[in-house]
Amino acid sequence: MTYCVGMLLDAGIVMLSDTRTNAGMDDVSTYRKMFIFEDPGERVLTIMTAGNLSVTQTVISRIEEAAEDPEATEKTSILLAPTLFQAIEIIGNVLSDVASDIAAKVRRMDQATNATASMIIGGQRRNGRMHLYRLYTEGNFIEATEDTPYLQIGEHKYGKPILDRVVTPKTSLEDARKAVLLSMDSTLRSNLSVGMPLDYVLMKKDDCKVTRQDRIEADDEAFKAMSDAWSQALRDSFAAVP
Amino acid sequence: MTYCVGMLLDAGIVMLSDTRTNAGMDDVSTYRKMFIFEDPGERVLTIMTAGNLSVTQTVISRIEEAAEDPEATEKTSILLAPTLFQAIEIIGNVLSDVASDIAAKVRRMDQATNATASMIIGGQRRNGRMHLYRLYTEGNFIEATEDTPYLQIGEHKYGKPILDRVVTPKTSLEDARKAVLLSMDSTLRSNLSVGMPLDYVLMKKDDCKVTRQDRIEADDEAFKAMSDAWSQALRDSFAAVP
Repeated sequence: MTYCVGMLLDAGIVMLSDTRTNAGMDDVSTYRKMFIFEDPGERVLTIMTAGNLSVTQTVISRIEEAAEDPEATEKTSILLAPTLFQAIEIIGNVLSDVASDIAAKVRRMDQATNATASMIIGGQRRNGRMHLYRLYTEGNFIEATEDTPYLQIGEHKYGKPILDRVVTPKTSLEDARKAVLLSMDSTLRSNLSVGMPLDYVLMKKDDCKVTRQDRIEADDEAFKAMSDAWSQALRDSFAAVP
Repeated sequence: MTYCVGMLLDAGIVMLSDTRTNAGMDDVSTYRKMFIFEDPGERVLTIMTAGNLSVTQTVISRIEEAAEDPEATEKTSILLAPTLFQAIEIIGNVLSDVASDIAAKVRRMDQATNATASMIIGGQRRNGRMHLYRLYTEGNFIEATEDTPYLQIGEHKYGKPILDRVVTPKTSLEDARKAVLLSMDSTLRSNLSVGMPLDYVLMKKDDCKVTRQDRIEADDEAFKAMSDAWSQALRDSFAAVP
């Protein structure tokens, strides 16, 4: 499975994804689920993917090819689209096309199809505002707002209680990083099909580029310390509640 | 939907259920999902139910009728079965029969069937040990053990992280009550189809009866205070993590 979470804050956008994929319990692999498209200072888009890997890889490849095509236009390249909204429409159309194609192929073989995928896309264009979208297989999408500043895809339930309690648009970027990592930590503990390493991206407001990017490996000392401190704090809180 | 959780501890069994049922978002009702069968001092069984309401109500009615039948035998009444294990087999057979019957009726009307249900059953018989079972629609079941001292049915994910961190067989009965209530609190916050009031039961080891039973209403001051204290403690813990 997968867990990806993105936050749209006053100060910027924070995104975190895991890297585990599985086709059955006995076929587990590591794949990057986070993809960055940027023209630094002009525009940035970070895409996180969940669902059928053949669908998501094909979508990302088509988007990359379209963006690198010397004859790319505003209608085909997400790096040329006049607004972020139009870039999302391009990605939505590609996702819908690819998912439909693969579903048709699977049906032709008389097999049950599960060729679905979803994405979280965050970014900003110079002189535009920041956006964070959640894209569905069918190509439609919703956007994070002040009332609901975060979006999740994949195995979202275990990591939601902490987000519901601490995240608002005013949350600082440091706290946002802590919140997504702790949300991921709860998910890693409870679902074996979500796994390390993790990919993290920060896009500060108006930077219009990736401000910070890192991969957190399974043996990361800081992550382990945070995870242990959180477990201990939870147990202490539990003891303190009357 | 539903959330029910039961714990098998060295000191006794603790069980908690919500009361919300819904047939679609616009058809929400309150139904008790916890049912007690006891011959105080001799044996006690507490059943919690999740799933299709027509299935669970029919199962409970059949079990009640069978137990009250003057001609009840060891093979038909869960209050006469020689062991708790055999009582669970009786309930499992009734559940499997009822679910199959209702599924057949639904299929006969050419409708898609979702006539499934599951149960958690905890109890003890005099001179026997305590047991906590999770029963599936098909009538088969699993049992809580020292390694996994709690069982959940229904909307189980939101309330699992807290249980994973604080519950062991050594957990005291006071802490167990706190743990199931906080686990329920997380679930209530994140899923509208789980709702107050709550039904709580404690069966102390070797009492072979219900030691404590209460209904926690929506305006319960103690529950609200606990919920607020937990939210505050979580936020404080979050702030304290490096």
